[in-house]
Amino acid sequence: MSFYVRVPGTSANIGPGFDSIGIALSLYNEYEVSELESGEQFINIDPQFANAEHLMVRSIRYVEDAFGLPHKGILLKAVKEEIPVARGLGSSAAMISAGVCLANALHGLMLPSIKLLNLVSEIEGHPDNVSPALFGGLTVSCKTEDGYYTKLLTPDRCFLFAVAIPDFEVPTKEARRLLPVNVPREDAIHNLSRTGLLLGGLTDGDPDCLRRALSDRLHEPYRKKLIPDFDRVSRFMAERGAIGTVISGAGPTLLSVFSNPDRETEEKIRRFKRDEALLNQECEAHWVIRFLPVDMDGTSVVNTDWE
Amino acid sequence: MSFYVRVPGTSANIGPGFDSIGIALSLYNEYEVSELESGEQFINIDPQFANAEHLMVRSIRYVEDAFGLPHKGILLKAVKEEIPVARGLGSSAAMISAGVCLANALHGLMLPSIKLLNLVSEIEGHPDNVSPALFGGLTVSCKTEDGYYTKLLTPDRCFLFAVAIPDFEVPTKEARRLLPVNVPREDAIHNLSRTGLLLGGLTDGDPDCLRRALSDRLHEPYRKKLIPDFDRVSRFMAERGAIGTVISGAGPTLLSVFSNPDRETEEKIRRFKRDEALLNQECEAHWVIRFLPVDMDGTSVVNTDWE
Repeated sequence: MSFYVRVPGTSANIGPGFDSIGIALSLYNEYEVSELESGEQFINIDPQFANAEHLMVRSIRYVEDAFGLPHKGILLKAVKEEIPVARGLGSSAAMISAGVCLANALHGLMLPSIKLLNLVSEIEGHPDNVSPALFGGLTVSCKTEDGYYTKLLTPDRCFLFAVAIPDFEVPTKEARRLLPVNVPREDAIHNLSRTGLLLGGLTDGDPDCLRRALSDRLHEPYRKKLIPDFDRVSRFMAERGAIGTVISGAGPTLLSVFSNPDRETEEKIRRFKRDEALLNQECEAHWVIRFLPVDMDGTSVVNTDWE
Repeated sequence: MSFYVRVPGTSANIGPGFDSIGIALSLYNEYEVSELESGEQFINIDPQFANAEHLMVRSIRYVEDAFGLPHKGILLKAVKEEIPVARGLGSSAAMISAGVCLANALHGLMLPSIKLLNLVSEIEGHPDNVSPALFGGLTVSCKTEDGYYTKLLTPDRCFLFAVAIPDFEVPTKEARRLLPVNVPREDAIHNLSRTGLLLGGLTDGDPDCLRRALSDRLHEPYRKKLIPDFDRVSRFMAERGAIGTVISGAGPTLLSVFSNPDRETEEKIRRFKRDEALLNQECEAHWVIRFLPVDMDGTSVVNTDWE
């Protein structure tokens, strides 16, 4: 059997929704996958990842082991890898989601989505990036007594996202070590009310609400220190109409939200391409800006045997 | 001029949405209000509240002073007062919202809703009960740098609420003194993710999501101590199909949510009337149970001069 798999990049947190909210962005990794007699073979994969430890392969093996199934041989060919590694755009979540969905397809498991969610979350260790990678759209995720759970929400189409990706990495572990174990109750209330506004603003297409929502006290005040250009990029985006700019996941990518109801958007994007150079003149790191609509498909696995 | 004003009771928090989420319930206070030459007169109002310190009168005066307007004479006649005082069902928020909306009507101010929201929130000191009292429905509220803000959401009609009201009071100040100033970051995340599920579950009509949402770590673990029957009432409601039971506002009223898609509901309510006696046999306090749909109107002021 052979398959074509496509998986989106994702941005977790979106400001106040720390460790809970995620959104899928139309930035994709795409692979052709074929069944082999045994083992693993790789085409177009960075040599340092082209082995049995490749996260997509490990995820396939995790599912096979969970169901007591034999390990199928895998030929993995990268067609497109747009999601940057270790930048806060869910590259590992994408590999895990692709692997779990491939295992589901390869073995004809027909798993329900709540089971897929629990498998990807177990492998990743937390659900906030893997949920939107798996399902697309906007997700609220948590671990409950019954396992991982995600509520899928549909963001209004009036918003456009921009990611500013710098040329340095922030390891998630390092970004997490900066966070205090205890927080003021007022900060907890601040974030939970803004999380409500965030979801209301995104699903209802309400830019004014969203502007007030994009305010965090649980992680950004600590993590900003790892991103020296944070204020410069935020100001750059705000001057060009951004509703707000937040750290994507654990960073260092920054996510900006734009309201996109009119024809100006194309012009705005054209100007950005030119202005990117201006931004980079004043920044310490080199930043690349991409405009991305929300992805609503999540991980798609297509059987290509019939072609 | 004369007016008829109706204002709903409200329940704040709804579990995880501490100090932020509120919902209006179809439990009403209703008044006839007429203009006098000067001063205040009261009909059918508890003598201890029948003076210039009556919260509705004070709220009218607050608006008049804020706009530099003369104090109009007020005749206030209670037609119906269903919202119990100091029970966690927003009785003071109701008086404030009624007063501000009356002042708006009496003086023909035509204030926009964001201005009304800011007036009622300033008088009450926080927006979580006054927002749903003013607007009806489900609200996410907070104080921002620009003043108070509320996002209105529409709860799906598949839910029915029940309030269990005991025969004792819990002063909000006492309930607040119990809360710690700092909380574990994990508890903050717990609540913000559940707040997301709460809003998603309520607006999307998803009982399974709502069941997982009704879990709080920021106030209920501390406030339960003031409500010795909490577990008994929760169990009673759960045995009869409640999705979950939470403390309404600062308590002591308990709010239960039921999924209401079928004809069984009327039968369920009939049984509750009978079962209330069973509950009270095992409880320390005396509890009265009422089933209440969501109120979607908020405070309504009707000019009755034309009648």
